[in-house]
Amino acid sequence: MFEKDLRIAYLLDFYGDVLTERKKEVLDMYYNEDLSLAEIAEQIGISRQGVRDLIKKAEEELLFLEDKLGLAKRMSALKKHSDNMLSIAKSTPLPSSIVVEIEEIAKIIK
Amino acid sequence: MFEKDLRIAYLLDFYGDVLTERKKEVLDMYYNEDLSLAEIAEQIGISRQGVRDLIKKAEEELLFLEDKLGLAKRMSALKKHSDNMLSIAKSTPLPSSIVVEIEEIAKIIK
Repeated sequence: MFEKDLRIAYLLDFYGDVLTERKKEVLDMYYNEDLSLAEIAEQIGISRQGVRDLIKKAEEELLFLEDKLGLAKRMSALKKHSDNMLSIAKSTPLPSSIVVEIEEIAKIIK
Repeated sequence: MFEKDLRIAYLLDFYGDVLTERKKEVLDMYYNEDLSLAEIAEQIGISRQGVRDLIKKAEEELLFLEDKLGLAKRMSALKKHSDNMLSIAKSTPLPSSIVVEIEEIAKIIK
């Protein structure tokens, strides 16, 4: 049994749409629904080894993308600062021009 | 001759690191150095058709990524609002707590 890498669930959410439907489905079952390899194998009708191979390949794709692009890390840092700005805006009077921008940024980051 | 797609230069800058070195190099010559297919062919020692194929495949990879992820578009919208905040911060007195966040965001977006 290989160990679950907790970054993967986040990367799946971030880059998952570039994976094939099958790979995305299997990673979702494994990381989000927390099914075992055997349970996934039964559900999609391939061998346990086949599931393991799919997961490994899909994980490699996600890690490759983040290693090359680093966008998940950047977006997560942006989210932190966007949240900080939102909470400052709640407790401190700010010009409406800046509040509009803060809200627009929070909307884009989500 | 196929037409140059101006989005490609931007996507190359954004997602280029996921391409193979060869594809990245050829797209860079074509879009940033503005060399012709024939000039690139001569420089890297493959046929003109080979260059054309490399460019087409590399473009497809970049367009696929943006179609699936939309991150270049999101980052470009964030940059616009980050720039707006910076210019407001220059002309309007703001609490230092918010200025710090505005500067952090600008640094991450670059």
